[in-house]
Amino acid sequence: MSNLIQPVKGTRDFYPEDWAFQMWFYEKVKEVSLSFGFEEYEGPIIESLELYAAKSGEELVKKQAFTFKDQSEKVVALRPEMTPTLARMIAQKSGELTFPVKWFTFGRRFRYEKPQKGRGREFFQWDADILGSESPEADAEAIALAANLYRKLDLTPQEVRIKVNDRALLQERLVSLGIPEEKVVAVFRLIDKKSKVSEKDFFEMAEKEGLNKDQITAINQIITEKDAHKDSPWLNKVFDLLKKQGCADFVEFDPSIVRGLEYYTRTVFEGWDIKGEFRSIWGGGRYDNLTAEIGSKQRIPGVGFAMGDRVIAEILRANNKFPSLNPNKTRVLVTVFSEKLYEKSLEIGQRLRTAGLNTEVFLEVNTKLDKQLKYADRKKIPYAVIVGPDEAKNETVTVKKLEDREQKTYTLEEFLETLSS
Amino acid sequence: MSNLIQPVKGTRDFYPEDWAFQMWFYEKVKEVSLSFGFEEYEGPIIESLELYAAKSGEELVKKQAFTFKDQSEKVVALRPEMTPTLARMIAQKSGELTFPVKWFTFGRRFRYEKPQKGRGREFFQWDADILGSESPEADAEAIALAANLYRKLDLTPQEVRIKVNDRALLQERLVSLGIPEEKVVAVFRLIDKKSKVSEKDFFEMAEKEGLNKDQITAINQIITEKDAHKDSPWLNKVFDLLKKQGCADFVEFDPSIVRGLEYYTRTVFEGWDIKGEFRSIWGGGRYDNLTAEIGSKQRIPGVGFAMGDRVIAEILRANNKFPSLNPNKTRVLVTVFSEKLYEKSLEIGQRLRTAGLNTEVFLEVNTKLDKQLKYADRKKIPYAVIVGPDEAKNETVTVKKLEDREQKTYTLEEFLETLSS
Repeated sequence: MSNLIQPVKGTRDFYPEDWAFQMWFYEKVKEVSLSFGFEEYEGPIIESLELYAAKSGEELVKKQAFTFKDQSEKVVALRPEMTPTLARMIAQKSGELTFPVKWFTFGRRFRYEKPQKGRGREFFQWDADILGSESPEADAEAIALAANLYRKLDLTPQEVRIKVNDRALLQERLVSLGIPEEKVVAVFRLIDKKSKVSEKDFFEMAEKEGLNKDQITAINQIITEKDAHKDSPWLNKVFDLLKKQGCADFVEFDPSIVRGLEYYTRTVFEGWDIKGEFRSIWGGGRYDNLTAEIGSKQRIPGVGFAMGDRVIAEILRANNKFPSLNPNKTRVLVTVFSEKLYEKSLEIGQRLRTAGLNTEVFLEVNTKLDKQLKYADRKKIPYAVIVGPDEAKNETVTVKKLEDREQKTYTLEEFLETLSS
Repeated sequence: MSNLIQPVKGTRDFYPEDWAFQMWFYEKVKEVSLSFGFEEYEGPIIESLELYAAKSGEELVKKQAFTFKDQSEKVVALRPEMTPTLARMIAQKSGELTFPVKWFTFGRRFRYEKPQKGRGREFFQWDADILGSESPEADAEAIALAANLYRKLDLTPQEVRIKVNDRALLQERLVSLGIPEEKVVAVFRLIDKKSKVSEKDFFEMAEKEGLNKDQITAINQIITEKDAHKDSPWLNKVFDLLKKQGCADFVEFDPSIVRGLEYYTRTVFEGWDIKGEFRSIWGGGRYDNLTAEIGSKQRIPGVGFAMGDRVIAEILRANNKFPSLNPNKTRVLVTVFSEKLYEKSLEIGQRLRTAGLNTEVFLEVNTKLDKQLKYADRKKIPYAVIVGPDEAKNETVTVKKLEDREQKTYTLEEFLETLSS
């Protein structure tokens, strides 16, 4: 039995083939974000706990956040989400920034959750946000950005959708049922959990929150009214703008969407897969008071979303759209004929690199050529260059194409030409 | 006074202009790593503390590591360095991997150090390692890789160097002074600290370790003998190979280099700046027993290095080689003429994006054109597109070049042509 130290539960090792997917996904995210004029930023992984205590929601802060005291006894957290960091950064430099600010980032988040398919304790998220705009145009753009990532990943409206709701509309209707305003957040939390519990449990939880039978029945009614958005000029506008951006196929109104984070104030939206294998792919919304809630004197409205890497990877797999990627980007292996000729191999290697070709020179000088070619095969390197005594004398290289084992002797310049043509 | 929640000491906010440098540096690191045939990997940020306790060295583990108990009472650490994670990953899949393995990564590390110029508690490091080769060719390649990054950053041998030593050679000489083998690691640690303390303090520290006067005098002699490498066939070979790779100008022998990490077994090396403003830019070495030390049955030899982002940034600044970068990659701002014509602007925006141009559509529909142009100026967006009633009617766009305010009316296709020509 090996006593090898094991990785921590819920963390992930990215071997080159795993990392190739992360980089592929990141490139898609980056392309689509830049195409809409977003700038890339990043923030600390360690933040003070109070940053999240403000408004991230009880479950995230008290149950899921990795928190600890650092050497100076300060209580810190590994960021469970990015929006509070973003709000802090924006508030900090609000005087220097040109609003609206459109920023995106792709990085690690940490949550102490039960590891399961599509969920881990360390994961990556794409965050994209627009700050300093209170217009429905900003909400529509955030949603359109996510829809355009779907397209870039080759996902269709037959596979994935975006459900949209308006918390302000929902709040208005809850208050009209006689629910006091200060209780609305608790009822939001209740509705957010509804799809995860039985009808009976929902009823009991609602009664515990002090709702009466009529109110509970009315809520059940409200969150299934599929055309209630017609009463919200705001949502009508957002849907109209999404249609004009060519995203209508991907979006639909869903009166039961509220999202778990407490800081959302108006539009909320969530990515869903049609098959319903995963509860929620990603989510976002408008948060108009967050900078004020983390202590800024200035109120800077915002809208944005976060999309994790793991569920997206599962969705791609489930729809046969997971890419096949080769993590090895090397074009040429320069083999070593003998210790004496190693110098020549090093020189050829450096010249190929200078010409822009990713080139590996074999590292063990006394290895049979056959074994070196097998190494190239296993690493999926397409060309092997052989520099023997004849080649060294004639200033040539013999090139073997690994695919079909065909080989030919050229000058180095001729070889480079065949590759570029 | 604002009560805005502050970032944690020693952490860093990357505003788009800061992040642009990180991405520029990462691109350089990636290019040079791939050019030598390295594959990219990543690992967890949270590891069990025992992974480092094995051999990372007392200071790093006991004083500098961020450690805490997670919700399951397991003692974990935020990775202070990458090599133990790499060794764990390699040992875990040693049966499936084709050796030698050449891997690189660029990611976060965490150390509770006193924040100062070039140092923070969160930072990024480039790690590049070769595993499964015991040849001096591997050591030379690791050093050549770093030298080639210097070149890619436009740093010259008049600005930066790489100092190389052999711990095995030094150990042999220490043992010949009558120092017992089990004390050699402690003496290495002592020598590593020498340049940071006074002559007198060094003497006292050495006496505390049980060395006598003659031994201390002899050590002082040994670590200044500039041609001692001639006694090491290993180092002779490494220097010869570096010469053949065209890196001779960047490398030199330094008998005082030992490195702080305990797992190094042979070649050790360190980046230095000629001006001596920074103690050590980066470092690495050969570690032939690390997989065994973290519990693997298999001994997999390795060599590699780690280079932090912050000191390199300072070095580039000190030598006037810090790049000037624009974090905004947007080419076109489509302005909004009126609420009615916003639809047209959205359509033009989407068409420009489809043509591959990063395009922002202004988000506030009732803003004067002048203000929209100022926004483009501030964000350094080179072109503004105007879609007024005439343009909408004639299916044209008016394009204003922000640089000189010149403007011209085209069809969209004509505009795209002027950009590509």
